[in-house]
Amino acid sequence: MSAPKATKRAAPTTSIATHTNDDIYIRDKSLCSELIGKLSFTEMIVFQMLGRMPSAAETAMIDACLVTLMEHGLTPSALATRLIYSSAPEAMQAGVAAGLMGVGSVFVGTMEGNAQLLLEIVEDPAGIEAAATRVAQEHRAARKPLPGFGHHLHKPDDPRPIRLFQLAEEHGQSGTYIAALKALSAAIDAVYGKHITINATGAIAAVLMDCGVPAEILRGFALITRCAGLVGHVREEQEKPSMRTIWETSEAAIPYDGTVPGA
Amino acid sequence: MSAPKATKRAAPTTSIATHTNDDIYIRDKSLCSELIGKLSFTEMIVFQMLGRMPSAAETAMIDACLVTLMEHGLTPSALATRLIYSSAPEAMQAGVAAGLMGVGSVFVGTMEGNAQLLLEIVEDPAGIEAAATRVAQEHRAARKPLPGFGHHLHKPDDPRPIRLFQLAEEHGQSGTYIAALKALSAAIDAVYGKHITINATGAIAAVLMDCGVPAEILRGFALITRCAGLVGHVREEQEKPSMRTIWETSEAAIPYDGTVPGA
Amino acid sequence: MSAPKATKRAAPTTSIATHTNDDIYIRDKSLCSELIGKLSFTEMIVFQMLGRMPSAAETAMIDACLVTLMEHGLTPSALATRLIYSSAPEAMQAGVAAGLMGVGSVFVGTMEGNAQLLLEIVEDPAGIEAAATRVAQEHRAARKPLPGFGHHLHKPDDPRPIRLFQLAEEHGQSGTYIAALKALSAAIDAVYGKHITINATGAIAAVLMDCGVPAEILRGFALITRCAGLVGHVREEQEKPSMRTIWETSEAAIPYDGTVPGA
Amino acid sequence: MSAPKATKRAAPTTSIATHTNDDIYIRDKSLCSELIGKLSFTEMIVFQMLGRMPSAAETAMIDACLVTLMEHGLTPSALATRLIYSSAPEAMQAGVAAGLMGVGSVFVGTMEGNAQLLLEIVEDPAGIEAAATRVAQEHRAARKPLPGFGHHLHKPDDPRPIRLFQLAEEHGQSGTYIAALKALSAAIDAVYGKHITINATGAIAAVLMDCGVPAEILRGFALITRCAGLVGHVREEQEKPSMRTIWETSEAAIPYDGTVPGA
Repeated sequence: MSAPKATKRAAPTTSIATHTNDDIYIRDKSLCSELIGKLSFTEMIVFQMLGRMPSAAETAMIDACLVTLMEHGLTPSALATRLIYSSAPEAMQAGVAAGLMGVGSVFVGTMEGNAQLLLEIVEDPAGIEAAATRVAQEHRAARKPLPGFGHHLHKPDDPRPIRLFQLAEEHGQSGTYIAALKALSAAIDAVYGKHITINATGAIAAVLMDCGVPAEILRGFALITRCAGLVGHVREEQEKPSMRTIWETSEAAIPYDGTVPGA
Repeated sequence: MSAPKATKRAAPTTSIATHTNDDIYIRDKSLCSELIGKLSFTEMIVFQMLGRMPSAAETAMIDACLVTLMEHGLTPSALATRLIYSSAPEAMQAGVAAGLMGVGSVFVGTMEGNAQLLLEIVEDPAGIEAAATRVAQEHRAARKPLPGFGHHLHKPDDPRPIRLFQLAEEHGQSGTYIAALKALSAAIDAVYGKHITINATGAIAAVLMDCGVPAEILRGFALITRCAGLVGHVREEQEKPSMRTIWETSEAAIPYDGTVPGA
Repeated sequence: MSAPKATKRAAPTTSIATHTNDDIYIRDKSLCSELIGKLSFTEMIVFQMLGRMPSAAETAMIDACLVTLMEHGLTPSALATRLIYSSAPEAMQAGVAAGLMGVGSVFVGTMEGNAQLLLEIVEDPAGIEAAATRVAQEHRAARKPLPGFGHHLHKPDDPRPIRLFQLAEEHGQSGTYIAALKALSAAIDAVYGKHITINATGAIAAVLMDCGVPAEILRGFALITRCAGLVGHVREEQEKPSMRTIWETSEAAIPYDGTVPGA
Repeated sequence: MSAPKATKRAAPTTSIATHTNDDIYIRDKSLCSELIGKLSFTEMIVFQMLGRMPSAAETAMIDACLVTLMEHGLTPSALATRLIYSSAPEAMQAGVAAGLMGVGSVFVGTMEGNAQLLLEIVEDPAGIEAAATRVAQEHRAARKPLPGFGHHLHKPDDPRPIRLFQLAEEHGQSGTYIAALKALSAAIDAVYGKHITINATGAIAAVLMDCGVPAEILRGFALITRCAGLVGHVREEQEKPSMRTIWETSEAAIPYDGTVPGA
């Protein structure tokens, strides 16, 4: 199949990087004289992704979000990384990539679903409280899931949102989206007649959006920090291999339900 | 195929994470009260991966390495990420994972090859200078490539190692492995009779090893920061799509060399 | 995060494979005495995936679909495979996996979108013609894209559906779904007042569904045959490396739009 | 980083596919009039990959190899596919790709290691028997693993090689490489003083090489048929979800070995 001709399409350019014989430039800044040794990794992530330098308060909040999301134990992602790394240890990148592909709709998609609700609430001319109540009522009526709310284990409250909101207050970073999320939480408790906790992915959506991160790239932050978490699992797999235990245990837990002649 | 029985194998455990109803614990520290808001992302990466808190000087050097490696322009990895992201935008994780898989022997493997040379030099009872000369002579005699040395563009010197070594001096982090790399560089210039630059991957291997990072997990740092770089390319692809340009241009540059009847 | 407890959930089993000391059994058949040497690869694919042996006519049609979809030239998927394979040739699996991840909504999703339309038409109590007209009218009114219809190059008709439908006739495999697709095509031409070709992915959805393939696993057939196509690109990349050409060409086609001081 | 200039490098071309407005051409044959409906999937795989049509006997043997390697139960690859598919069901391609990345050195690398031994034996001017004895003696003396030999479960003999060699005889496809493998097997039994079975990957290396498949693309056949096997696991995961069982079971089998304050 050939690439479709699209004469109306503008030729794309890149604003990210270029180089000369003497240096590399990232978004017009010299890598060697303006970035290395001047920026933390977190600041560089924001600069690379959004093309602007974060404030100290934004960096503190983004650090907090990245620390919160990095590690969740032996999740499906971590198990996939361990299984694939120990099957092909010559290609560590493939083991990490395998686990990273589990950052999809089931676990992290709720961050994006919550972001959509927050955008809808913030942009509603009726105001945040009225919009939050309407959203809660619509979800209850349609029996739709509430992305960013509920946790099977942490009840009545997930401790991570509490900590993140407290930090945001301290850093003067509690803005419109955190306000919208808190209003939605209050509306949900009222409409459903019971307390449903804000969970970590819901809180992180609001915190990052209050740092100016666009909704459509939120998942990217989850990918960066989960990548670091998965490298930690690779390191542990190098020292304490678990692949054969995962294999044997899973095989035993999911028995064959057919019939073998003579068996 | 069933998992091979291995009765002699010890049952594996994990030291990374656990949780209670009230909190998550990572390496015995409370996520909510001891980590979120207390650690930068870089400190958390080291804590997760190596199980110990880095010193301020180590954090500064690891930040510098991560900033150095994040972005290299429209590399094969970045192109793969853009091609796959724009083919399946519903799965950003797959686009990032596709590019991450390019972090293999050709581009980043030199970091690990260089680390092996440094380990060999540091452990040689003959001393660093003698060992460096021997390694240089052996490589010249066998016409073997010198991992961590040479750059097709940055001549006579890659500016990144110079900057990293200067920072290491400032932070009191210029240790055995940087010393070994400098000795090897001097030996190579003498043995080959010309100056061959230390390149960025070579320098980063030495800097990270002087921060206590084991050689076998070095590639993990490249994966973490390239992941962030690739998320930046996803963000730009969302705003300035390039997939069809890469497709059309490549198709035109790699013509069909067969014969079509009637054409 | 711990796995949520779900006491109501039934323990899963597998019906795919087991083994004894003497043989492997796949869906209760002996691999060595009943499958190897008795089944073609295509028959084995159906047996593995659906748990039943296809008829000769079904095998012929599935072969035709797999042959049709295998290769499309230097597509984004093939380019990603070549870029990643040549960056990490020690991990051929990663190069193939990178390209495979391009089998997503933009290129193959139309097969699944078309399948949904066909299911809707077939299940409509109003009958196929009335349902097809309704679907065409609804899409026109809402200016919605028509999955399975249209091709930027092959006009007035994509030659692949014509060939596939002719083969289905010959093998007595032209059933309900092909009928629904033809009815939809006629309705579209009438409603839109112009001829819009059925494309290859649309035709393949109908052909595979007439072979009894459930709509939700259709993409799996695309994955299997694209995997084979991508292995062909790896083989050509081994003999005629193209990675650096793709890289240089793309870099030149997507210029840096920033300003470098002094440049 | 810019693509290195390489003026001596020939501009690459492709021999795989092109198209006109009326048809697609694969290796100079019309997709619609010469391939669809004329070739089985297996024949098309060989034609795409090697640029020549296989004989009927070669097709039979390649079918047998693909059938043999497709499915091995709940292996690390299949578990990774199930974990990732159920984490991101909107991206089936990512689930399949995750499992495919487990086709690396640990499980399939033995096919390639065995192929190297066979090439060495066949090319030895001393003749196959003498070369086989030398290879066996060298491996014993160096205590090196014997790729393609040994199986933890199937003793004294893996039933799959027996079946494949018998089929090769029937089809007149038992050539130099199968002869070399049998000679090596006899030499190993003599040198080690005990019977060590040829295993499935060893046999398949020899069978495919006797069909003219180059050693460096052998892994590609494993990738194609494992891809089909993994799609079968996706289909079963759609009907009988196992992700949470794998997760819970593995978490219980790999306990946290740290200490939580107050726990």
